Amino acid sequence: MVEIVEVGPRDGLQNESALVPTAAKIAYIEALIAAGARRIEATSFVHPKRVPQMADAEAVMAGVPRAPGVRYIGLVLNERGLDRALAAGVDEVNVVLVASETFSRRNQGMSVAEAVRSFAAVSGRARAAGLGVTATIGASFGCPFEGEVAPATVAGLVRDCADAGADEIALADTIGVGVPADVVRLVEATRGVTDLPLRFHFHNTRNTGYANALTAVEHGAAALDASAGGIGGCPFAPNATGNIATEDLTYALRRSGIASGLTLSGVVDAAALIEHELGAQVPALLGRAGDFPGELSPER
Amino acid sequence: MVEIVEVGPRDGLQNESALVPTAAKIAYIEALIAAGARRIEATSFVHPKRVPQMADAEAVMAGVPRAPGVRYIGLVLNERGLDRALAAGVDEVNVVLVASETFSRRNQGMSVAEAVRSFAAVSGRARAAGLGVTATIGASFGCPFEGEVAPATVAGLVRDCADAGADEIALADTIGVGVPADVVRLVEATRGVTDLPLRFHFHNTRNTGYANALTAVEHGAAALDASAGGIGGCPFAPNATGNIATEDLTYALRRSGIASGLTLSGVVDAAALIEHELGAQVPALLGRAGDFPGELSPER
Repeated sequence: MVEIVEVGPRDGLQNESALVPTAAKIAYIEALIAAGARRIEATSFVHPKRVPQMADAEAVMAGVPRAPGVRYIGLVLNERGLDRALAAGVDEVNVVLVASETFSRRNQGMSVAEAVRSFAAVSGRARAAGLGVTATIGASFGCPFEGEVAPATVAGLVRDCADAGADEIALADTIGVGVPADVVRLVEATRGVTDLPLRFHFHNTRNTGYANALTAVEHGAAALDASAGGIGGCPFAPNATGNIATEDLTYALRRSGIASGLTLSGVVDAAALIEHELGAQVPALLGRAGDFPGELSPER
Repeated sequence: MVEIVEVGPRDGLQNESALVPTAAKIAYIEALIAAGARRIEATSFVHPKRVPQMADAEAVMAGVPRAPGVRYIGLVLNERGLDRALAAGVDEVNVVLVASETFSRRNQGMSVAEAVRSFAAVSGRARAAGLGVTATIGASFGCPFEGEVAPATVAGLVRDCADAGADEIALADTIGVGVPADVVRLVEATRGVTDLPLRFHFHNTRNTGYANALTAVEHGAAALDASAGGIGGCPFAPNATGNIATEDLTYALRRSGIASGLTLSGVVDAAALIEHELGAQVPALLGRAGDFPGELSPER
Protein backbone atom coordinates (compact mmCIF):
# COMPACT_ATOMS: atom_id res chain seq x y z
CA MET A 1 0.00 0.00 0.00
CA VAL A 2 1.22 3.48 -0.84
CA GLU A 3 -0.71 6.71 -0.50
CA ILE A 4 -0.94 8.96 -3.52
CA VAL A 5 -1.21 12.64 -2.66
CA GLU A 6 -3.08 14.29 -5.51
CA VAL A 7 -1.32 17.56 -6.39
CA GLY A 8 -2.97 18.31 -9.75
CA PRO A 9 -5.17 21.12 -8.37
CA ARG A 10 -2.08 22.83 -6.89
CA ASP A 11 1.26 21.97 -8.50
CA GLY A 12 -0.42 20.92 -11.75
CA LEU A 13 -2.62 23.96 -12.29
CA GLN A 14 -0.06 26.36 -10.82
CA ASN A 15 2.30 25.56 -13.68
CA GLU A 16 -0.23 25.73 -16.51
CA SER A 17 -0.47 29.04 -18.33
CA ALA A 18 -4.26 28.75 -18.64
CA LEU A 19 -6.28 30.25 -15.78
CA VAL A 20 -8.85 27.61 -14.85
CA PRO A 21 -12.16 28.88 -13.37
CA THR A 22 -12.79 28.07 -9.71
CA ALA A 23 -15.84 25.95 -10.56
CA ALA A 24 -13.73 23.77 -12.87
CA LYS A 25 -11.10 23.31 -10.17
CA ILE A 26 -13.81 22.17 -7.77
CA ALA A 27 -15.22 19.78 -10.39
CA TYR A 28 -11.69 18.37 -10.90
CA ILE A 29 -11.35 17.84 -7.14
CA GLU A 30 -14.79 16.21 -6.96
CA ALA A 31 -13.81 13.83 -9.77
CA LEU A 32 -10.58 13.01 -7.93
CA ILE A 33 -12.51 12.16 -4.77
CA ALA A 34 -14.81 9.94 -6.84
CA ALA A 35 -11.67 8.19 -8.12
CA GLY A 36 -10.59 7.45 -4.55
CA ALA A 37 -8.29 10.39 -3.74
CA ARG A 38 -8.30 11.07 0.00
CA ARG A 39 -5.44 13.52 0.40
CA ILE A 40 -5.53 16.41 -2.02
CA GLU A 41 -3.24 19.42 -2.28
CA ALA A 42 -6.05 21.75 -3.25
CA THR A 43 -4.41 25.14 -3.54
CA SER A 44 -1.57 27.43 -2.56
CA PHE A 45 -1.75 30.43 -0.24
CA VAL A 46 0.89 32.55 -1.91
CA HIS A 47 0.72 36.09 -3.19
CA PRO A 48 -1.80 36.25 -6.06
CA LYS A 49 0.48 38.57 -8.01
CA ARG A 50 3.24 35.93 -7.94
CA VAL A 51 0.96 32.99 -8.76
CA PRO A 52 -2.23 34.23 -10.38
CA GLN A 53 -3.33 30.61 -11.02
CA MET A 54 -3.88 30.24 -7.26
CA ALA A 55 -5.51 33.63 -6.60
CA ASP A 56 -8.83 31.90 -5.83
CA ALA A 57 -7.45 29.78 -2.96
CA GLU A 58 -10.16 30.83 -0.50
CA ALA A 59 -12.95 30.30 -3.06
CA VAL A 60 -11.65 26.82 -3.90
CA MET A 61 -11.56 25.80 -0.23
CA ALA A 62 -15.04 27.25 0.30
CA GLY A 63 -16.41 25.19 -2.58
CA VAL A 64 -14.85 21.75 -2.16
CA PRO A 65 -16.95 18.95 -0.62
CA ARG A 66 -16.17 17.99 2.96
CA ALA A 67 -16.44 14.23 2.62
CA PRO A 68 -15.45 11.91 5.47
CA GLY A 69 -11.83 10.85 5.22
CA VAL A 70 -10.91 13.49 2.65
CA ARG A 71 -8.09 15.77 3.77
CA TYR A 72 -7.18 19.01 2.01
CA ILE A 73 -3.66 20.35 1.95
CA GLY A 74 -2.78 23.99 1.38
CA LEU A 75 0.70 25.03 0.36
CA VAL A 76 2.12 27.91 2.37
CA LEU A 77 5.50 29.62 2.30
CA ASN A 78 5.30 31.72 5.47
CA GLU A 79 3.05 32.89 8.34
CA ARG A 80 0.99 35.17 6.10
CA GLY A 81 0.13 32.13 4.01
CA LEU A 82 -0.63 30.16 7.15
CA ASP A 83 -3.08 32.81 8.35
CA ARG A 84 -5.00 32.45 5.09
CA ALA A 85 -4.82 28.64 5.15
CA LEU A 86 -6.16 28.52 8.72
CA ALA A 87 -9.01 30.86 7.84
CA ALA A 88 -9.83 28.82 4.73
CA GLY A 89 -10.07 25.61 6.74
CA VAL A 90 -7.40 23.31 5.32
CA ASP A 91 -6.61 20.04 7.11
CA GLU A 92 -2.87 20.16 6.51
CA VAL A 93 -0.24 22.62 5.40
CA ASN A 94 2.66 21.85 3.12
CA VAL A 95 5.60 24.19 3.62
CA VAL A 96 8.25 24.30 0.91
CA LEU A 97 11.88 24.89 1.76
CA VAL A 98 14.67 24.54 -0.79
CA ALA A 99 17.89 22.58 -0.38
CA SER A 100 20.07 25.06 -2.25
CA GLU A 101 20.96 28.54 -1.01
CA THR A 102 20.64 30.28 -4.37
CA PHE A 103 17.28 28.71 -5.18
CA SER A 104 15.99 29.50 -1.67
CA ARG A 105 16.90 33.18 -1.95
CA ARG A 106 15.37 33.44 -5.41
CA ASN A 107 12.22 31.42 -4.77
CA GLN A 108 11.44 32.26 -1.16
CA GLY A 109 13.38 35.47 -0.76
CA MET A 110 15.26 34.11 2.24
CA SER A 111 18.31 32.06 3.12
CA VAL A 112 17.87 28.38 3.99
CA ALA A 113 18.51 29.19 7.68
CA GLU A 114 15.82 31.88 7.58
CA ALA A 115 13.45 29.43 5.87
CA VAL A 116 13.98 26.92 8.70
CA ARG A 117 13.16 29.58 11.30
CA SER A 118 10.07 30.59 9.32
CA PHE A 119 9.08 26.92 9.07
CA ALA A 120 9.38 26.51 12.85
CA ALA A 121 7.01 29.43 13.39
CA VAL A 122 4.49 28.13 10.82
CA SER A 123 4.75 24.59 12.10
CA GLY A 124 4.22 25.55 15.75
CA ARG A 125 1.08 27.53 15.01
CA ALA A 126 -0.31 24.97 12.55
CA ARG A 127 0.16 22.10 14.99
CA ALA A 128 -1.42 24.15 17.77
CA ALA A 129 -4.43 24.52 15.45
CA GLY A 130 -4.55 20.75 14.94
CA LEU A 131 -3.25 20.71 11.37
CA GLY A 132 -0.84 18.23 9.83
CA VAL A 133 2.47 19.76 8.79
CA THR A 134 4.63 18.60 5.90
CA ALA A 135 8.05 20.01 5.10
CA THR A 136 8.78 19.68 1.40
CA ILE A 137 12.47 19.93 0.55
CA GLY A 138 12.58 21.40 -2.95
CA ALA A 139 15.52 20.75 -5.28
CA SER A 140 16.48 17.66 -3.28
CA PHE A 141 17.73 15.98 -6.47
CA GLY A 142 19.43 18.98 -8.06
CA CYS A 143 19.21 22.74 -8.38
CA PRO A 144 18.71 24.77 -11.56
CA PHE A 145 21.20 27.36 -10.30
CA GLU A 146 23.80 25.39 -8.34
CA GLY A 147 23.65 22.01 -10.09
CA GLU A 148 24.28 18.95 -7.93
CA VAL A 149 22.89 18.93 -4.37
CA ALA A 150 24.58 16.60 -1.90
CA PRO A 151 22.34 14.08 -0.07
CA ALA A 152 24.06 15.20 3.15
CA THR A 153 22.82 18.76 2.54
CA VAL A 154 19.28 17.46 2.07
CA ALA A 155 19.58 15.29 5.17
CA GLY A 156 20.76 18.28 7.22
CA LEU A 157 17.71 20.26 6.19
CA VAL A 158 15.45 17.27 6.88
CA ARG A 159 16.85 17.05 10.41
CA ASP A 160 16.27 20.78 10.94
CA CYS A 161 12.65 20.44 9.74
CA ALA A 162 12.05 17.39 11.92
CA ASP A 163 13.41 19.31 14.90
CA ALA A 164 11.18 22.26 13.99
CA GLY A 165 7.99 20.18 14.14
CA ALA A 166 7.28 18.56 10.75
CA ASP A 167 5.23 15.40 10.94
CA GLU A 168 6.03 14.36 7.35
CA ILE A 169 9.02 15.00 5.09
CA ALA A 170 8.56 15.30 1.32
CA LEU A 171 11.62 15.13 -0.91
CA ALA A 172 10.95 16.95 -4.17
CA ASP A 173 12.69 16.56 -7.51
CA THR A 174 11.52 20.05 -8.44
CA ILE A 175 13.27 20.15 -11.82
CA GLY A 176 12.98 16.46 -12.72
CA VAL A 177 16.62 15.41 -12.89
CA GLY A 178 16.82 12.44 -10.51
CA VAL A 179 17.25 8.74 -11.21
CA PRO A 180 16.47 5.70 -9.00
CA ALA A 181 20.03 5.56 -7.66
CA ASP A 182 19.50 9.11 -6.31
CA VAL A 183 16.27 8.01 -4.62
CA VAL A 184 18.11 5.22 -2.82
CA ARG A 185 20.91 7.57 -1.72
CA LEU A 186 18.40 10.13 -0.40
CA VAL A 187 16.35 7.52 1.46
CA GLU A 188 19.52 6.29 3.13
CA ALA A 189 20.70 9.81 4.01
CA THR A 190 17.27 10.77 5.38
CA ARG A 191 16.82 7.58 7.37
CA GLY A 192 20.01 8.51 9.17
CA VAL A 193 18.40 11.62 10.65
CA THR A 194 14.66 10.95 11.11
CA ASP A 195 11.95 8.31 11.33
CA LEU A 196 9.21 10.62 10.05
CA PRO A 197 7.10 9.27 7.14
CA LEU A 198 8.73 9.99 3.77
CA ARG A 199 6.79 11.37 0.85
CA PHE A 200 8.27 11.93 -2.61
CA HIS A 201 7.44 14.48 -5.27
CA PHE A 202 8.60 13.59 -8.77
CA HIS A 203 8.40 15.41 -12.06
CA ASN A 204 8.73 13.43 -15.28
CA THR A 205 10.74 16.20 -16.95
CA ARG A 206 13.36 13.76 -18.26
CA ASN A 207 11.28 10.57 -18.28
CA THR A 208 12.72 9.26 -15.02
CA GLY A 209 9.75 10.08 -12.75
CA TYR A 210 7.98 6.72 -12.78
CA ALA A 211 11.18 4.74 -12.24
CA ASN A 212 11.93 7.04 -9.30
CA ALA A 213 8.44 6.60 -7.87
CA LEU A 214 8.56 2.79 -8.00
CA THR A 215 12.02 2.82 -6.44
CA ALA A 216 10.83 5.13 -3.65
CA VAL A 217 7.98 2.73 -2.83
CA GLU A 218 10.38 -0.20 -2.85
CA HIS A 219 12.53 1.69 -0.34
CA GLY A 220 9.77 2.50 2.08
CA ALA A 221 8.17 5.75 0.88
CA ALA A 222 4.80 6.21 2.60
CA ALA A 223 3.37 8.59 0.02
CA LEU A 224 3.91 9.83 -3.53
CA ASP A 225 2.72 13.05 -5.11
CA ALA A 226 1.12 12.85 -8.57
CA SER A 227 -1.23 14.94 -10.70
CA ALA A 228 -4.18 13.47 -12.59
CA GLY A 229 -3.38 14.01 -16.27
CA GLY A 230 0.26 14.66 -15.45
CA ILE A 231 -0.55 18.34 -15.82
CA GLY A 232 1.83 21.07 -14.80
CA GLY A 233 5.25 21.83 -16.10
CA CYS A 234 8.60 23.11 -15.04
CA PRO A 235 9.28 26.83 -14.61
CA PHE A 236 12.91 26.19 -15.57
CA ALA A 237 12.17 24.28 -18.78
CA PRO A 238 9.29 25.95 -20.60
CA ASN A 239 8.46 23.02 -22.89
CA ALA A 240 8.90 20.27 -20.31
CA THR A 241 6.25 17.95 -18.95
CA GLY A 242 5.01 18.16 -15.35
CA ASN A 243 4.33 15.96 -12.36
CA ILE A 244 4.12 12.22 -12.81
CA ALA A 245 0.54 11.41 -13.78
CA THR A 246 -1.75 9.86 -11.19
CA GLU A 247 -3.31 7.43 -13.68
CA ASP A 248 0.01 6.23 -15.08
CA LEU A 249 1.34 5.78 -11.54
CA THR A 250 -1.83 3.96 -10.52
CA TYR A 251 -1.39 1.58 -13.45
CA ALA A 252 2.27 0.89 -12.65
CA LEU A 253 1.52 0.32 -8.96
CA ARG A 254 -1.46 -1.93 -9.61
CA ARG A 255 0.49 -4.15 -11.99
CA SER A 256 3.28 -4.24 -9.40
CA GLY A 257 0.81 -5.58 -6.84
CA ILE A 258 0.79 -2.37 -4.77
CA ALA A 259 -2.54 -0.89 -3.69
CA SER A 260 -3.15 2.86 -3.88
CA GLY A 261 -6.89 3.09 -3.23
CA LEU A 262 -7.52 4.75 -6.59
CA THR A 263 -9.51 3.44 -9.54
CA LEU A 264 -7.77 3.86 -12.86
CA SER A 265 -10.97 4.70 -14.74
CA GLY A 266 -11.88 7.31 -12.14
CA VAL A 267 -8.52 9.07 -12.45
CA VAL A 268 -8.71 8.93 -16.26
CA ASP A 269 -12.13 10.62 -16.01
CA ALA A 270 -10.74 13.38 -13.77
CA ALA A 271 -7.85 13.89 -16.19
CA ALA A 272 -10.25 14.12 -19.15
CA LEU A 273 -12.18 16.81 -17.31
CA ILE A 274 -9.12 18.98 -16.73
CA GLU A 275 -7.77 18.24 -20.23
CA HIS A 276 -10.99 19.66 -21.65
CA GLU A 277 -10.62 22.71 -19.42
CA LEU A 278 -6.97 23.32 -20.39
CA GLY A 279 -7.69 22.77 -24.07
CA ALA A 280 -4.50 20.81 -24.70
CA GLN A 281 -3.53 17.14 -24.58
CA VAL A 282 -2.31 16.14 -21.12
CA PRO A 283 1.03 14.28 -20.78
CA ALA A 284 -0.52 11.20 -19.10
CA LEU A 285 -0.46 8.14 -21.36
CA LEU A 286 -3.08 5.80 -19.85
CA GLY A 287 -5.99 7.81 -21.21
CA ARG A 288 -4.54 7.39 -24.71
CA ALA A 289 -3.19 3.83 -24.50
CA GLY A 290 -5.95 2.15 -22.49
CA ASP A 291 -5.78 -0.22 -19.56
CA PHE A 292 -4.32 -3.74 -19.72
CA PRO A 293 -5.67 -6.30 -19.67
CA GLY A 294 -9.00 -4.88 -20.55
CA GLU A 295 -10.25 -2.44 -23.10
CA LEU A 296 -7.05 -2.82 -25.05
CA SER A 297 -8.00 -5.73 -27.29
CA PRO A 298 -9.07 -4.55 -30.73
CA GLU A 299 -11.59 -7.39 -30.80
CA ARG A 300 -13.51 -6.47 -27.68
CA MET B 1 28.14 -0.91 -19.29
CA VAL B 2 25.06 -1.72 -21.30
CA GLU B 3 24.75 -1.75 -25.06
CA ILE B 4 21.96 0.28 -26.63
CA VAL B 5 20.68 -1.19 -29.89
CA GLU B 6 19.34 1.71 -31.93
CA VAL B 7 16.01 0.68 -33.47
CA GLY B 8 14.72 4.09 -34.59
CA PRO B 9 15.40 3.46 -38.29
CA ARG B 10 13.40 0.19 -38.11
CA ASP B 11 10.84 -0.05 -35.30
CA GLY B 12 10.59 3.71 -34.99
CA LEU B 13 10.05 4.59 -38.64
CA GLN B 14 8.01 1.45 -39.32
CA ASN B 15 5.33 2.73 -36.95
CA GLU B 16 5.22 6.31 -38.17
CA SER B 17 2.58 7.10 -40.78
CA ALA B 18 4.92 9.45 -42.65
CA LEU B 19 7.02 7.84 -45.37
CA VAL B 20 10.55 9.09 -44.84
CA PRO B 21 12.80 9.34 -47.94
CA THR B 22 15.71 6.91 -48.11
CA ALA B 23 18.26 9.73 -48.02
CA ALA B 24 16.78 11.03 -44.76
CA LYS B 25 16.92 7.54 -43.23
CA ILE B 26 20.58 7.32 -44.15
CA ALA B 27 21.25 10.78 -42.68
CA TYR B 28 19.50 9.66 -39.47
CA ILE B 29 21.72 6.56 -39.32
CA GLU B 30 24.83 8.65 -39.98
CA ALA B 31 23.87 10.99 -37.14
CA LEU B 32 23.33 7.98 -34.86
CA ILE B 33 26.80 6.66 -35.67
CA ALA B 34 28.24 10.11 -34.93
CA ALA B 35 26.47 9.88 -31.55
CA GLY B 36 28.24 6.62 -30.80
CA ALA B 37 25.70 4.00 -31.96
CA ARG B 38 27.48 0.82 -33.01
CA ARG B 39 24.60 -1.64 -33.40
CA ILE B 40 21.76 -0.32 -35.49
CA GLU B 41 18.57 -2.07 -36.59
CA ALA B 42 18.55 -0.36 -39.94
CA THR B 43 15.55 -1.83 -41.72
CA SER B 44 13.13 -4.70 -42.11
CA PHE B 45 12.98 -7.22 -44.92
CA VAL B 46 9.24 -7.80 -44.93
CA HIS B 47 6.74 -7.51 -47.75
CA PRO B 48 6.59 -3.89 -48.95
CA LYS B 49 2.81 -4.10 -49.28
CA ARG B 50 2.52 -4.98 -45.57
CA VAL B 51 5.05 -2.40 -44.39
CA PRO B 52 5.46 0.33 -47.02
CA GLN B 53 7.69 2.30 -44.62
CA MET B 54 10.39 -0.37 -45.10
CA ALA B 55 10.00 -0.85 -48.88
CA ASP B 56 13.44 0.72 -49.45
CA ALA B 57 15.34 -1.82 -47.31
CA GLU B 58 17.89 -2.62 -50.02
CA ALA B 59 18.45 1.05 -50.85
CA VAL B 60 19.01 1.90 -47.19
CA MET B 61 21.57 -0.86 -46.78
CA ALA B 62 23.32 0.19 -50.02
CA GLY B 63 23.59 3.77 -48.73
CA VAL B 64 24.69 3.44 -45.13
CA PRO B 65 28.36 4.00 -44.23
CA ARG B 66 30.45 0.92 -43.47
CA ALA B 67 32.41 2.28 -40.53
CA PRO B 68 34.66 0.00 -38.45
CA GLY B 69 32.81 -1.49 -35.52
CA VAL B 70 29.34 -0.53 -36.80
CA ARG B 71 27.00 -3.49 -37.16
CA TYR B 72 23.72 -3.35 -39.06
CA ILE B 73 20.78 -5.52 -38.13
CA GLY B 74 17.96 -6.40 -40.51
CA LEU B 75 14.62 -7.67 -39.22
CA VAL B 76 13.38 -10.78 -41.01
CA LEU B 77 10.31 -12.94 -40.46
CA ASN B 78 11.15 -15.91 -42.71
CA GLU B 79 13.57 -17.32 -45.31
CA ARG B 80 12.37 -14.97 -48.03
CA GLY B 81 13.31 -12.07 -45.78
CA LEU B 82 16.64 -13.73 -45.01
CA ASP B 83 17.46 -14.04 -48.73
CA ARG B 84 16.99 -10.31 -49.10
CA ALA B 85 18.92 -9.52 -45.92
CA LEU B 86 21.88 -11.65 -47.05
CA ALA B 87 21.93 -10.00 -50.47
CA ALA B 88 21.73 -6.55 -48.86
CA GLY B 89 24.74 -7.26 -46.65
CA VAL B 90 23.45 -6.97 -43.09
CA ASP B 91 25.73 -8.04 -40.21
CA GLU B 92 22.98 -9.58 -38.10
CA VAL B 93 19.39 -10.68 -38.45
CA ASN B 94 16.68 -10.17 -35.88
CA VAL B 95 13.88 -12.72 -36.17
CA VAL B 96 10.61 -11.97 -34.41
CA LEU B 97 8.51 -14.74 -32.91
CA VAL B 98 5.49 -14.08 -30.70
CA ALA B 99 4.75 -15.63 -27.32
CA SER B 100 1.00 -15.87 -27.88
CA GLU B 101 -0.68 -18.23 -30.32
CA THR B 102 -3.35 -15.75 -31.50
CA PHE B 103 -0.86 -12.93 -32.04
CA SER B 104 1.52 -15.28 -33.87
CA ARG B 105 -1.15 -16.43 -36.28
CA ARG B 106 -2.30 -12.88 -36.94
CA ASN B 107 1.10 -11.22 -37.16
CA GLN B 108 3.22 -13.92 -38.77
CA GLY B 109 0.51 -16.08 -40.33
CA MET B 110 1.77 -19.18 -38.52
CA SER B 111 1.47 -21.00 -35.24
CA VAL B 112 4.18 -20.59 -32.62
CA ALA B 113 5.48 -24.09 -33.38
CA GLU B 114 5.67 -23.25 -37.10
CA ALA B 115 7.47 -20.01 -36.22
CA VAL B 116 10.08 -21.97 -34.27
CA ARG B 117 10.68 -24.29 -37.23
CA SER B 118 10.96 -21.28 -39.54
CA PHE B 119 13.37 -19.66 -37.09
CA ALA B 120 15.56 -22.77 -37.07
CA ALA B 121 15.81 -22.66 -40.86
CA VAL B 122 16.61 -18.93 -40.94
CA SER B 123 19.06 -19.24 -38.07
CA GLY B 124 20.96 -22.13 -39.61
CA ARG B 125 21.46 -20.36 -42.92
CA ALA B 126 22.27 -17.00 -41.31
CA ARG B 127 24.91 -18.52 -39.04
CA ALA B 128 26.40 -20.41 -41.95
CA ALA B 129 26.77 -17.04 -43.68
CA GLY B 130 28.55 -15.63 -40.61
CA LEU B 131 25.70 -13.43 -39.39
CA GLY B 132 24.63 -12.85 -35.81
CA VAL B 133 21.14 -14.16 -35.02
CA THR B 134 18.76 -12.67 -32.48
CA ALA B 135 15.41 -14.21 -31.57
CA THR B 136 13.01 -11.50 -30.41
CA ILE B 137 10.09 -12.85 -28.40
CA GLY B 138 7.23 -10.44 -29.07
CA ALA B 139 4.39 -9.96 -26.57
CA SER B 140 6.59 -11.33 -23.77
CA PHE B 141 4.88 -9.00 -21.28
CA GLY B 142 1.31 -9.34 -22.53
CA CYS B 143 -0.75 -9.91 -25.67
CA PRO B 144 -3.33 -7.56 -27.19
CA PHE B 145 -5.53 -10.56 -28.03
CA GLU B 146 -4.99 -13.03 -25.21
CA GLY B 147 -4.10 -10.69 -22.33
CA GLU B 148 -1.65 -12.04 -19.77
CA VAL B 149 1.27 -14.16 -21.00
CA ALA B 150 2.86 -16.49 -18.46
CA PRO B 151 6.65 -16.15 -17.93
CA ALA B 152 6.83 -19.96 -18.27
CA THR B 153 5.37 -19.68 -21.79
CA VAL B 154 8.00 -17.11 -22.70
CA ALA B 155 10.74 -19.24 -21.16
CA GLY B 156 9.59 -22.26 -23.18
CA LEU B 157 9.87 -20.29 -26.39
CA VAL B 158 13.25 -18.91 -25.34
CA ARG B 159 14.51 -22.47 -24.83
CA ASP B 160 13.20 -23.48 -28.25
CA CYS B 161 14.95 -20.52 -29.88
CA ALA B 162 18.20 -21.20 -28.03
CA ASP B 163 18.04 -24.83 -29.20
CA ALA B 164 17.34 -23.61 -32.74
CA GLY B 165 20.53 -21.53 -32.90
CA ALA B 166 19.89 -18.02 -31.57
CA ASP B 167 22.96 -16.30 -30.20
CA GLU B 168 20.98 -13.58 -28.44
CA ILE B 169 17.47 -13.48 -26.95
CA ALA B 170 15.44 -10.26 -26.97
CA LEU B 171 12.33 -10.03 -24.81
CA ALA B 172 9.91 -7.49 -26.23
CA ASP B 173 7.12 -5.61 -24.50
CA THR B 174 5.47 -5.09 -27.88
CA ILE B 175 2.39 -3.32 -26.52
CA GLY B 176 4.02 -1.53 -23.58
CA VAL B 177 2.19 -3.07 -20.63
CA GLY B 178 5.00 -4.38 -18.42
CA VAL B 179 6.31 -3.12 -15.08
CA PRO B 180 9.67 -3.73 -13.36
CA ALA B 181 8.29 -6.69 -11.38
CA ASP B 182 7.50 -8.38 -14.73
CA VAL B 183 11.08 -7.76 -15.88
CA VAL B 184 12.44 -9.50 -12.80
CA ARG B 185 10.08 -12.47 -13.25
CA LEU B 186 11.03 -12.82 -16.92
CA VAL B 187 14.76 -12.59 -16.22
CA GLU B 188 14.38 -15.34 -13.62
CA ALA B 189 12.29 -17.54 -15.92
CA THR B 190 14.70 -17.05 -18.82
CA ARG B 191 17.82 -17.65 -16.75
CA GLY B 192 16.37 -21.04 -15.92
CA VAL B 193 16.57 -22.14 -19.55
CA THR B 194 19.51 -20.35 -21.20
CA ASP B 195 22.75 -18.45 -20.63
CA LEU B 196 22.50 -16.51 -23.91
CA PRO B 197 22.88 -12.72 -23.65
CA LEU B 198 19.54 -11.04 -22.87
CA ARG B 199 18.36 -7.97 -24.73
CA PHE B 200 15.15 -6.10 -23.89
CA HIS B 201 12.79 -4.12 -26.11
CA PHE B 202 10.53 -1.70 -24.26
CA HIS B 203 7.82 0.63 -25.43
CA ASN B 204 6.84 3.56 -23.23
CA THR B 205 3.14 3.16 -24.11
CA ARG B 206 2.04 3.44 -20.47
CA ASN B 207 5.04 5.33 -19.06
CA THR B 208 6.69 2.23 -17.60
CA GLY B 209 9.41 1.78 -20.25
CA TYR B 210 12.29 3.58 -18.55
CA ALA B 211 11.65 1.94 -15.18
CA ASN B 212 11.65 -1.41 -16.99
CA ALA B 213 14.88 -0.61 -18.81
CA LEU B 214 16.75 0.37 -15.64
CA THR B 215 15.45 -2.74 -13.88
CA ALA B 216 16.57 -4.94 -16.78
CA VAL B 217 20.10 -3.51 -16.57
CA GLU B 218 20.14 -4.02 -12.82
CA HIS B 219 19.23 -7.66 -13.44
CA GLY B 220 21.93 -8.36 -15.99
CA ALA B 221 20.51 -7.35 -19.38
CA ALA B 222 23.34 -7.08 -21.89
CA ALA B 223 21.50 -4.80 -24.32
CA LEU B 224 18.48 -2.51 -24.56
CA ASP B 225 16.60 -1.39 -27.66
CA ALA B 226 15.73 2.29 -27.97
CA SER B 227 14.88 4.76 -30.74
CA ALA B 228 16.42 8.22 -30.99
CA GLY B 229 13.55 10.65 -30.48
CA GLY B 230 11.36 7.88 -29.05
CA ILE B 231 9.72 7.72 -32.47
CA GLY B 232 7.35 4.96 -33.44
CA GLY B 233 4.08 4.00 -31.91
CA CYS B 234 1.91 1.06 -31.17
CA PRO B 235 -0.24 -0.58 -33.85
CA PHE B 236 -2.74 -1.56 -31.12
CA ALA B 237 -3.10 1.91 -29.59
CA PRO B 238 -3.20 4.50 -32.36
CA ASN B 239 -2.42 7.52 -30.17
CA ALA B 240 0.19 5.86 -28.02
CA THR B 241 3.87 6.72 -27.83
CA GLY B 242 6.58 4.42 -29.17
CA ASN B 243 9.91 2.91 -28.17
CA ILE B 244 11.76 4.29 -25.21
CA ALA B 245 13.89 7.19 -26.46
CA THR B 246 17.62 6.68 -26.84
CA GLU B 247 18.47 10.13 -25.45
CA ASP B 248 16.22 9.79 -22.39
CA LEU B 249 17.64 6.33 -21.72
CA THR B 250 21.19 7.63 -22.20
CA TYR B 251 20.49 10.37 -19.63
CA ALA B 252 19.04 7.93 -17.09
CA LEU B 253 21.92 5.48 -17.53
CA ARG B 254 24.60 8.15 -17.34
CA ARG B 255 23.20 9.59 -14.10
CA SER B 256 22.98 6.03 -12.78
CA GLY B 257 26.70 5.60 -13.42
CA ILE B 258 26.19 3.14 -16.30
CA ALA B 259 28.11 3.67 -19.53
CA SER B 260 26.40 3.23 -22.90
CA GLY B 261 29.00 4.63 -25.31
CA LEU B 262 26.56 7.29 -26.59
CA THR B 263 26.82 11.05 -26.30
CA LEU B 264 23.60 12.72 -25.21
CA SER B 265 24.10 15.74 -27.46
CA GLY B 266 24.76 13.47 -30.44
CA VAL B 267 21.55 11.51 -29.91
CA VAL B 268 19.57 14.73 -29.42
CA ASP B 269 20.95 15.93 -32.77
CA ALA B 270 19.89 12.69 -34.50
CA ALA B 271 16.42 13.01 -32.97
CA ALA B 272 16.13 16.62 -34.13
CA LEU B 273 16.96 15.49 -37.64
CA ILE B 274 14.22 12.86 -37.75
CA GLU B 275 11.76 15.16 -35.93
CA HIS B 276 12.22 17.68 -38.72
CA GLU B 277 11.65 14.91 -41.27
CA LEU B 278 8.49 13.62 -39.57
CA GLY B 279 7.12 17.13 -39.06
CA ALA B 280 5.79 16.41 -35.56
CA GLN B 281 7.21 16.71 -32.05
CA VAL B 282 8.96 13.49 -31.00
CA PRO B 283 8.06 11.90 -27.62
CA ALA B 284 11.60 12.10 -26.21
CA LEU B 285 11.91 14.65 -23.41
CA LEU B 286 15.64 15.41 -23.20
CA GLY B 287 15.61 17.56 -26.31
CA ARG B 288 12.93 19.72 -24.69
CA ALA B 289 14.10 19.71 -21.06
CA GLY B 290 17.86 19.97 -21.53
CA ASP B 291 20.70 18.08 -19.90
CA PHE B 292 21.56 18.29 -16.19
CA PRO B 293 23.78 19.60 -14.88
CA GLY B 294 24.64 21.77 -17.81
CA GLU B 295 22.67 23.89 -20.18
CA LEU B 296 19.71 23.84 -17.82
CA SER B 297 20.54 26.88 -15.73
CA PRO B 298 18.60 29.95 -16.88
CA GLU B 299 21.65 32.05 -16.06
CA ARG B 300 24.14 30.29 -18.29
